[in-house]
Amino acid sequence: MAKDKINRLKARLPRGLADRGETELAATREMLETIRRVYELYGFEALETPFIEYTDALGKFLPDQDRPNEGVFSFQDDDEQWLSLRYDLTAPLARHVAEHFDALAKPFRSYRAGWVFRNEKPGPGRFRQFMQFDADTVGAPTVAADAEICMMMADTLDALGLNGQYVIKVNNRKVLDGVLEAIGLGGEENAGRRLTVLRAIDKFDKVGIEGVRDLLGEGRWENPAAKSGDFTKGAGLDGAQSEMVLAMLQPGGASGIDNAAFAAGSAELAEIGSLVAAAGYADRVKIDPSVVRGLEYYTGPVFEAELTFEVKDEKGRPVRFGSVGGGGRYDGLVGRFRSEPVPATGFSIGVSRLAAALTTLGKLGSKAIAGPVVVLVMDRDRVADYMTMVSRLRSAGIRAEMYLGNPKNIGNQMKYADKRGAPCVVIQGSNEREAGEVQIKDLIEGAKAAEAITDNAEWREARPAQFSCRESELVEKVREVLARHDFG
Amino acid sequence: MAKDKINRLKARLPRGLADRGETELAATREMLETIRRVYELYGFEALETPFIEYTDALGKFLPDQDRPNEGVFSFQDDDEQWLSLRYDLTAPLARHVAEHFDALAKPFRSYRAGWVFRNEKPGPGRFRQFMQFDADTVGAPTVAADAEICMMMADTLDALGLNGQYVIKVNNRKVLDGVLEAIGLGGEENAGRRLTVLRAIDKFDKVGIEGVRDLLGEGRWENPAAKSGDFTKGAGLDGAQSEMVLAMLQPGGASGIDNAAFAAGSAELAEIGSLVAAAGYADRVKIDPSVVRGLEYYTGPVFEAELTFEVKDEKGRPVRFGSVGGGGRYDGLVGRFRSEPVPATGFSIGVSRLAAALTTLGKLGSKAIAGPVVVLVMDRDRVADYMTMVSRLRSAGIRAEMYLGNPKNIGNQMKYADKRGAPCVVIQGSNEREAGEVQIKDLIEGAKAAEAITDNAEWREARPAQFSCRESELVEKVREVLARHDFG
Repeated sequence: MAKDKINRLKARLPRGLADRGETELAATREMLETIRRVYELYGFEALETPFIEYTDALGKFLPDQDRPNEGVFSFQDDDEQWLSLRYDLTAPLARHVAEHFDALAKPFRSYRAGWVFRNEKPGPGRFRQFMQFDADTVGAPTVAADAEICMMMADTLDALGLNGQYVIKVNNRKVLDGVLEAIGLGGEENAGRRLTVLRAIDKFDKVGIEGVRDLLGEGRWENPAAKSGDFTKGAGLDGAQSEMVLAMLQPGGASGIDNAAFAAGSAELAEIGSLVAAAGYADRVKIDPSVVRGLEYYTGPVFEAELTFEVKDEKGRPVRFGSVGGGGRYDGLVGRFRSEPVPATGFSIGVSRLAAALTTLGKLGSKAIAGPVVVLVMDRDRVADYMTMVSRLRSAGIRAEMYLGNPKNIGNQMKYADKRGAPCVVIQGSNEREAGEVQIKDLIEGAKAAEAITDNAEWREARPAQFSCRESELVEKVREVLARHDFG
Repeated sequence: MAKDKINRLKARLPRGLADRGETELAATREMLETIRRVYELYGFEALETPFIEYTDALGKFLPDQDRPNEGVFSFQDDDEQWLSLRYDLTAPLARHVAEHFDALAKPFRSYRAGWVFRNEKPGPGRFRQFMQFDADTVGAPTVAADAEICMMMADTLDALGLNGQYVIKVNNRKVLDGVLEAIGLGGEENAGRRLTVLRAIDKFDKVGIEGVRDLLGEGRWENPAAKSGDFTKGAGLDGAQSEMVLAMLQPGGASGIDNAAFAAGSAELAEIGSLVAAAGYADRVKIDPSVVRGLEYYTGPVFEAELTFEVKDEKGRPVRFGSVGGGGRYDGLVGRFRSEPVPATGFSIGVSRLAAALTTLGKLGSKAIAGPVVVLVMDRDRVADYMTMVSRLRSAGIRAEMYLGNPKNIGNQMKYADKRGAPCVVIQGSNEREAGEVQIKDLIEGAKAAEAITDNAEWREARPAQFSCRESELVEKVREVLARHDFG
């Protein structure tokens, strides 16, 4: 036995991956359908791309990834070319549009729901496989497309029952670039440092203003007080530069800047603001200078959907639920494949995170799923008869099955029915058979009665929630039990 | 330009992978919903497992794969352990059941739909990523579970409208094992050769009786007449052995065999036959000695769903459409993780192949998807007004969008609307605005009229299918156009 244990294969999943059961799947399906209806109403069309792409076609745009292969699952094809699992749904869209450019109606407005993969350190609520639901407009040069997509996100969250509990925050990378240019970080040669600054700002929600200050300067320890844990190297800004960047995080704080990028970004934000106001979304879509987004490829407006209701963090302190999605304009991404730039903008919902929010609020997954009616096997020579009963129930649209385990122990059969959430079981032993009858035991009623009746003798006497009927009435009587419990 | 072309990234997909558009996605979604309804009616519950598993947990059970890593996409985790993309939905189910054995209701009856990956040579209709839809009963020792799952497949194909155009074929690996034992291929030491024989038989549909004969003997050339192409090594049987195996493919052809495996398998087949007959499925679920299935892990009954209607092969000859799914009993697969064996049986539908069959028969994907109503941009300073019109349409549940490309050329806007399948466009230039009106152009009616009217002057005169209405009547009038074309 000990030897057997050592040699036996261990059933386990790699870290950061999880199985999902029927309650979660039903809830997700319902949520995805709601999102899909809103996206389609806005005129977006369905598209799916495969999970595997050429590594070079996906590019490397993930935040926090310094080493070449970090963040992405990659492997070589038998012709030695590198393949990767997609890490988002935007890079594959850019490939799709570039590949089929002439055949597509432009602007190309598509939505895509699907799993993406990140080869990174998993943590609580952080998985290596998770689902995104994206909508993108490719070939739309003006911010009307950005404004529209932000309003669609607001409508989506409203449709999911989150009215008044979120804000869609909008900022512009050009504004940020203008500020960085003003502090001497303009030009191609500073692209890397600019990205470090942006990613520092993007951590504002996690590390607070002091954390951002450290990340803009020399760097930051994971545990700043003890100077322990991982050390993240900073952007190396001096005090004055840092203060200018930090001022930008406040509304109106970066007002004194005079360059073309800043002016263009500010004008775009103003236009988005007025389009959003005209359409009556001003309370839901708001300009917010602290939004940055970690992905490298954004070139203009950037968005973030933040849920504003409070939950408790791991230390029991109340915190905002936070981001459930985001996006922005990425005018360069499709252009990598072509001789001309192709303007594009999109928004991505983090499906698992949004589902968690909705579950927290009791707006998802609270409905019990009715298990099957279970026909017990009282006599193993009569399996064909029991299967016929099941067949009659199914033909009437009633979810049903015959017990398929070892039928020897009736107690095990009853336990199975309980565990599956069966509303009732059907029993026909030899006595019932001779009388042309079946017994139907209402398990939901029975469980209630069991709570009320404490005396064993009384229980046997009353046989609560169990009754006989003619075998010919089986479907009708089972249907009555289902109707009694709103499973009809 | 030439230089630019050389350096530019090429937008392309790795071979054997494909994008899917809205028509195919809508058709697949409809089909999956139908399958799901039947599986749930039978009492199976939803389960999803991740795409990535430990390579050792999946095991190596693919047919036609001799080299260790062949057939599966694999890569190392950062702790050096090997991970693989799942190649089917059965091996991950076995891992799931073993991992959560004590918590699960047993028999554990689950269904799973999802993408699987094969790292093999793609061909016409043969992809490296494809979808399966499985149902499995784990913990059910008797063939009642096998019979049930075959009947469920019949009900599923009926629900998809394939009544009378398919057969669920059933055979038993024990019968095959009995025959192989009778010709001297019994015992552990002949396991490899037995598998070679089974896979030769499994190719019957593709290579015919002569091809199987070659594969049972010395081997077979890809082009037997010219002895060219790939050579597949055979099982090395002598003439008498081969003839006995070939006889088995005929009904009743292997009747003279007297050993325990053959007797057990035959008895199980007889019992499945009588259960199926009692339930009224004898015309749809049939015992067929030619069914083998290529996967190594089957231990008892094996199934195949074959569509019997004819299509033309690549040479224009009529052939049966063929297999759209299969499965069988795999009593050893979960047991690899445990000290005791765990009986299990399941059926897998090849979703893409079944969808292709249904599309061929006109039973899927023939319904046109209505594009969005497109509001044209006649004056780029009035984008907020056009967005408000769109917003009114959407609030009324009408799929709509404002044209988001460069609005300069009205012809391009109309072309876009056509390409998207817009039922109508909404136009408001300065004249209409002053009059408080909009123009609605019915594109479907317009296209019909364009076919009827051949004269340009007459066309301009009639302005078919275009009319004005008050701006306040916009929603009502658009709805009338949609209703006219059954898009209401």
